[in-house]
Amino acid sequence: SGSSACTMASDSEAQRALQYEQTLMYGRYTQDLGTFAKDEAARLRLQEEDTPRPRRPSELLEYTQGRCAPCRVCTLQCQRFLISKVGEDWVFLILLGLVMALVSWAMDFAIATCLQAQKWMYGGLDTNVLLQYMAWVTYPTVLITFSAGFTQILAPQAVGSGIPEMKTILRGVVLKEYLTLKTFVAKVIGLTCALGSGMPLGKEGPFVHIASMCAALLSRFLSLFGGFYENEARNIEMLAAACAVGVGCCFAAPIGGVLFSIEVTSTFFAVRNYWRGFFAATFSAFIFRVLAVWNKDEETITALFKTRFRLDFPFDLQELPAFAVIGIASGFGGALFVYLNRKIVQFMRRQKTINRFLMKKRLLFPALVTLIISTLTFPPGFGQFMAGQLTQKDTLVTLFDNQTWAKRGLNDEFEYLGILEAWHHPRSNIFITLVVFILMKFWMSALATTIPVPCGAFMPVFVIGAAFGRLVGESMAAWFPDGIHTDSNTYRIVPGGYAVVGAAALSGAVTHTVSTAVIVFELTGQISHILPVMIAVILANAVAQSLQPSLYDSIIRIKKLPYLPELGWGHHEKYNVRVEDIMVRDIRYVTLNCKYRDLQQVLHSTKMKNLPLVESAESMILLGSIERAQVAALLSNQLSPHRRLLTLRQKELSEDGHRLSDASIRFQISTDTSSGTPARPALRKPLKPALKRASSSPADSPPVPSHPIPSHPIPSHVLTPLSLPPCQAQGTAHHKAKRVRISIVEEMIMGDKMTPAEILEWEERQLDQLVDFSSAKIDPAPFQLVEHTSLHKTHTIFSLLGLDHAFVTSIGRLVGMVSLKELRKAIEGSLTAKGVKVRPPLASFRDSTTSTTEADTTALHQLWDRHQHHPMPREASPGGDDDDNTPK
Amino acid sequence: SGSSACTMASDSEAQRALQYEQTLMYGRYTQDLGTFAKDEAARLRLQEEDTPRPRRPSELLEYTQGRCAPCRVCTLQCQRFLISKVGEDWVFLILLGLVMALVSWAMDFAIATCLQAQKWMYGGLDTNVLLQYMAWVTYPTVLITFSAGFTQILAPQAVGSGIPEMKTILRGVVLKEYLTLKTFVAKVIGLTCALGSGMPLGKEGPFVHIASMCAALLSRFLSLFGGFYENEARNIEMLAAACAVGVGCCFAAPIGGVLFSIEVTSTFFAVRNYWRGFFAATFSAFIFRVLAVWNKDEETITALFKTRFRLDFPFDLQELPAFAVIGIASGFGGALFVYLNRKIVQFMRRQKTINRFLMKKRLLFPALVTLIISTLTFPPGFGQFMAGQLTQKDTLVTLFDNQTWAKRGLNDEFEYLGILEAWHHPRSNIFITLVVFILMKFWMSALATTIPVPCGAFMPVFVIGAAFGRLVGESMAAWFPDGIHTDSNTYRIVPGGYAVVGAAALSGAVTHTVSTAVIVFELTGQISHILPVMIAVILANAVAQSLQPSLYDSIIRIKKLPYLPELGWGHHEKYNVRVEDIMVRDIRYVTLNCKYRDLQQVLHSTKMKNLPLVESAESMILLGSIERAQVAALLSNQLSPHRRLLTLRQKELSEDGHRLSDASIRFQISTDTSSGTPARPALRKPLKPALKRASSSPADSPPVPSHPIPSHPIPSHVLTPLSLPPCQAQGTAHHKAKRVRISIVEEMIMGDKMTPAEILEWEERQLDQLVDFSSAKIDPAPFQLVEHTSLHKTHTIFSLLGLDHAFVTSIGRLVGMVSLKELRKAIEGSLTAKGVKVRPPLASFRDSTTSTTEADTTALHQLWDRHQHHPMPREASPGGDDDDNTPK
Repeated sequence: SGSSACTMASDSEAQRALQYEQTLMYGRYTQDLGTFAKDEAARLRLQEEDTPRPRRPSELLEYTQGRCAPCRVCTLQCQRFLISKVGEDWVFLILLGLVMALVSWAMDFAIATCLQAQKWMYGGLDTNVLLQYMAWVTYPTVLITFSAGFTQILAPQAVGSGIPEMKTILRGVVLKEYLTLKTFVAKVIGLTCALGSGMPLGKEGPFVHIASMCAALLSRFLSLFGGFYENEARNIEMLAAACAVGVGCCFAAPIGGVLFSIEVTSTFFAVRNYWRGFFAATFSAFIFRVLAVWNKDEETITALFKTRFRLDFPFDLQELPAFAVIGIASGFGGALFVYLNRKIVQFMRRQKTINRFLMKKRLLFPALVTLIISTLTFPPGFGQFMAGQLTQKDTLVTLFDNQTWAKRGLNDEFEYLGILEAWHHPRSNIFITLVVFILMKFWMSALATTIPVPCGAFMPVFVIGAAFGRLVGESMAAWFPDGIHTDSNTYRIVPGGYAVVGAAALSGAVTHTVSTAVIVFELTGQISHILPVMIAVILANAVAQSLQPSLYDSIIRIKKLPYLPELGWGHHEKYNVRVEDIMVRDIRYVTLNCKYRDLQQVLHSTKMKNLPLVESAESMILLGSIERAQVAALLSNQLSPHRRLLTLRQKELSEDGHRLSDASIRFQISTDTSSGTPARPALRKPLKPALKRASSSPADSPPVPSHPIPSHPIPSHVLTPLSLPPCQAQGTAHHKAKRVRISIVEEMIMGDKMTPAEILEWEERQLDQLVDFSSAKIDPAPFQLVEHTSLHKTHTIFSLLGLDHAFVTSIGRLVGMVSLKELRKAIEGSLTAKGVKVRPPLASFRDSTTSTTEADTTALHQLWDRHQHHPMPREASPGGDDDDNTPK
Repeated sequence: SGSSACTMASDSEAQRALQYEQTLMYGRYTQDLGTFAKDEAARLRLQEEDTPRPRRPSELLEYTQGRCAPCRVCTLQCQRFLISKVGEDWVFLILLGLVMALVSWAMDFAIATCLQAQKWMYGGLDTNVLLQYMAWVTYPTVLITFSAGFTQILAPQAVGSGIPEMKTILRGVVLKEYLTLKTFVAKVIGLTCALGSGMPLGKEGPFVHIASMCAALLSRFLSLFGGFYENEARNIEMLAAACAVGVGCCFAAPIGGVLFSIEVTSTFFAVRNYWRGFFAATFSAFIFRVLAVWNKDEETITALFKTRFRLDFPFDLQELPAFAVIGIASGFGGALFVYLNRKIVQFMRRQKTINRFLMKKRLLFPALVTLIISTLTFPPGFGQFMAGQLTQKDTLVTLFDNQTWAKRGLNDEFEYLGILEAWHHPRSNIFITLVVFILMKFWMSALATTIPVPCGAFMPVFVIGAAFGRLVGESMAAWFPDGIHTDSNTYRIVPGGYAVVGAAALSGAVTHTVSTAVIVFELTGQISHILPVMIAVILANAVAQSLQPSLYDSIIRIKKLPYLPELGWGHHEKYNVRVEDIMVRDIRYVTLNCKYRDLQQVLHSTKMKNLPLVESAESMILLGSIERAQVAALLSNQLSPHRRLLTLRQKELSEDGHRLSDASIRFQISTDTSSGTPARPALRKPLKPALKRASSSPADSPPVPSHPIPSHPIPSHVLTPLSLPPCQAQGTAHHKAKRVRISIVEEMIMGDKMTPAEILEWEERQLDQLVDFSSAKIDPAPFQLVEHTSLHKTHTIFSLLGLDHAFVTSIGRLVGMVSLKELRKAIEGSLTAKGVKVRPPLASFRDSTTSTTEADTTALHQLWDRHQHHPMPREASPGGDDDDNTPK
């Protein structure tokens, strides 16, 4: 799917850090150090329950109104009943399924109409080839350009597949703006136009994203009826089900949808969500197909691409090697596709000239790509050698055809009827047409999926796979015209079956999933080829996983989303590496009785996002973890001009009575007019929504982490925008912004009253005070590991709980820390020690052929030895600079 | 599946506690308090790596032998290569798949032979009905009795399905003896005989168990070639894959097998294992089917129960209500089946007279049940009304038949051909036969699965479901003789399709899975009925889950295995309950600077298996967790007669020189002869393997936890067998046993030298010493929660990590504890507050109909209020007495 957001966004590296924020499943809760606040909360909670709920007017109605009362009461009860139902999970899932089925069906309808319009235009102009060409080329170019422009303006987050983002979101990372109504609208309309253009693009990935957005919006909508939908854990679970719905209603494949969404988005999966997914996806697929029946498209509910292969003898045992060949070749092809796709993106980003030009003319690249592709598929032109006039759907229908196209004898010419005719060329034969089709579609699809429109790569790859399978099948049919089986019965070879196998294998290889097998069964409505399909898919996965990451992982890495690589199969050294071998020992910490100066020092010396809070430097007993932003807030609050003003005022108040208070009132009134002052433009940056960024805008994110702490000693004025007491979550952004402005104004005024030397002296005094942690939020139970925990176990815990760091303790004493970065390094470094190589589950298939040489293993051992001999890594800056060491 | 082990084992309640031991995924590692040991280990580890690996003789060979050297070198290299391959996961999975396919095929062959023998015998004696009856009845009785006796003698763990046990094992609980060779042999042979008898028993559940045993044995065997298989985490992962293989090669259904095993055994599933499962299950299913082709049973690889329904119009949209009816009715039927099965087991256990009688004559019950069932199915007798002569497989083939059996008109009599004839009765019609079949088979299956032989319930239930579906289908066919569709084409109703739907729905309802849908597609080789099947399965699950636990959960509860109930759907209050509402606050703890007397007190006052270690009673900072057994060991070591002897000897040694040392030598020599002394029989109990127990024998478990600490003050002699320094893992059981005996003898001798008063005084002195924790094993990072963690999150963490307890801390301070028991109570109590009611995922479907009355919700609210107003639960004994409050 499209990795295209990146082509345009190479300069937004700086905003990268703001784009996501980690939500820990564990250790999320915050608690004040003092027990007062806790007791207060408990008291309030009890109070809340004791006081009776105020009666709603509707309830009072029963007593006040005599006439018509029974009728009204009944209506009200019905209403109340319905509202109480809204909170049930199954109501939500049914609604989700219904909405998604309608969206899917409506979109399919619109796409079909678009495609028909093109065909009609092309057919109507058959008198003039030039006009025909113009129509053939202009139509998709306009649609794609519109799609690109529309999404760019409305919501750039809608670009591309969306599966990589969903994978990251389900891992517990909050990606702002990815689940909003604006993105939903942009994605739906953009996708419809993109697919209506007839480009080799798919709808599967975007549908996963659309369904997730639909679920998020639905829960926000339903939360109007009750508070059930405000729980975040529940919403994340619903997102997992929504992913299944997305695939399910896209292909009318509920089972395959659930499995595909599990494989693509999860590392650990709750069986609970699996049931939810099944329920919603089945309902959605059902409605989707029922709509087709009601629309008289179909006579009854059947598969989308129904095949009619014979049931009694689907394939011969001796054909299995051919299926295995399809699998292995698809594996290489899939890896090549992912590689090609990534290289195109990287090429576009690296070429500064192209890049700068394209950044200016954002719509030129999509238009250009569309122009090239549609020119090449122009049916009277080169398109005649590659069945260019067929839409994606028609292509698939013809490839899954029951008949054998290859010539059997000299005069046994196959008659191409209906849409099959597109594959027939008088001066060529079917083999050449298929080969041309495969080669052209391959690079076209890889290129088209980098266009910045909402689009997926699954369907194009699926079609290429089907064509490749068909090619093998036709070859087999030509080789064994009467079938292989030599017994009494003659069972001819069914090339359509090969096409099914090829489609599953190639799409499986690109996405690194085996559930594509299930998807093809559901798409074709036949399961008779189950063993060939399974064998081919598994072989394709084994090959592809050992060569390249999956397409989605590749995009995750290009977009630099946080990720944790999979542990490989059979890497026994993993079980022997321990946390003590990979942890960072030299970490900065905050002690309970430290001074503000210590905080300042810690902030300067480390970039860690979470600082451990220990009892004392001697005991090192870990008490909790405190966010960097909280520490910065503590410090800036201590040094804030506001506080300085207060102390100063108190002092002056005793000296001369009224003068200053007047001034302060005047300044507070002047805040609104002074908001336009260009004096400190830098300060207002985090408050301005960066609407035009390709990446998400940090508008909604709290201003505190969005302001990177500079590495030189903090001058007090840089910390000014942070000079609020830690925001209590109920404070709105507007409120904050106002207060910031007030304090700026105050500082400007008060700065005149104190000389810089005085300020410095005052600050130095403040820094020597003991820190008061009572206003800071502390996570009282950060995740802890011990030195002996194995790498394998650490990986499991990190991916199970969605952690991004864990402290290493020994009998309560803090001894080190492991973050996602160390873990990633340990896993990846263990094999290649040079970059983005991942070890996916089936990767050991390749190792088994390469690890025979002794040299490799020796090198590996040396690497491990080095790891173990230098247990103290030199880098002392965990977290924060993850982005720098991944090659671009 | 069989819940029959329990019928016979009602008196082994005492051994229950020994039957399993918790292995925590997290907090498993142990570490000494002093850092010395740690540094020492690190030093040793480095040393180990620095010293070159000693050359194996094979490597030296290259240099020493000149002649034939190249040849030998080549062989050796091949050998070395092969051995290096053995460690790869995929080699293991292929081997596992191969072995299981062979086992499955061989077993199927043996079962088919057994069944044919019975048929042959029955057919040969058709001259005399009495002889025929004798043959018909005696044959299965002998087989079942043999099976029951054989498993009883060889390995009672082989009895029943095995899925409940596998679920428990995969949750991290070690069930001794469940994965041994003996159990494997017992299960394979017992299952073959049981199924060969023709009783309504299944092979699916046992196959999951067999595959797991096969994986465990295989990894033990392969560990001879290298150390790869000694890692436990890896072995658990392989077990998950093995479960999939079990189902996969039983039904030739790789996809369904993987999904079924996930649903049945897991709460959270690693996608990593899912790929492993797919790989192994596909390979296994492939080999299983290839064997059938090679054996000329089949022409090519096809489905086991191939159907030939028409593809173009599988069903009408208007038939869907009928499918929904099948689903809902199957839901009720499934719940009834589970209920019936449990009631039979409970009835057998409760009736003391029956129970005692059956305990004596263990084989009588199986023989009796077999006699009744086979009498009722005797074809010339009552069997003629219920197709009694058909085997399970034939029944299924006929039920999935393509034709419609019901009469269409007066003279349109359907001709029953071949095995279909069994369903025909001249004086009855097909509806009556089907109803009788369903009713009889229903109770027969529920009864038969309680026989103490290796057997599953999946297949019998599947057959009943198919018959029910057929009944509905035939009724529909009779009602709409020309199909429902009123358009140009006439599509008649296909009752076989209804049978498929019914089979999936009922088996899904009994097992609480939706993957039975996938299994039927793979079994029948047709996926055209996907939507009806999915709808029926989901409805059946919704109904069944709201009424009863799944069959496997029911057995887990009957056998009192440790479990954690599922969280229900849509129970929003779950998100509002917090750890502070359910935790035990009044917990006992061990302080770092406590005395031995405090340890003694703690041991007396609590039954907790893990005690928290805090810094001091004032600070309450949690440092780690220490096992109860370790505390007991510390205490008993301090008070051990051995230590008393040593101090005494040292004192006496200074007084008079040689006398005592002579004596001690004499006693040490006499240890072997004194082992037979009957003086202290109780002491040797944990050393004696309890071979004849129905439950697992505690022979392999360490002696420490197997000796329950009595609740009255510990007399020193009871603690004697514990008087070892905590075993260092390398000490063998034999070694321990010897040392125990030595210390016994020493104590007996030395006891004579000190008066009881002296001993008491010495012990009092010892108790006042400070505890030296250096020899104890302390888990330095026990799992911690905070008070604000929600019940939902707690449940997730407990099931993710397989915890059985967690400490609740607040900024490092210990404030409480939550164990599996509290959690279970909170989840179950939240709904019914009275017993074993579970809230499975789809259960809210029932609530939606009942929760309309205001009274219910009020009661619920009161319950919650009560929870929240009494945050200090009265019970102060977490863990240990779990078994007592679950009704039997």
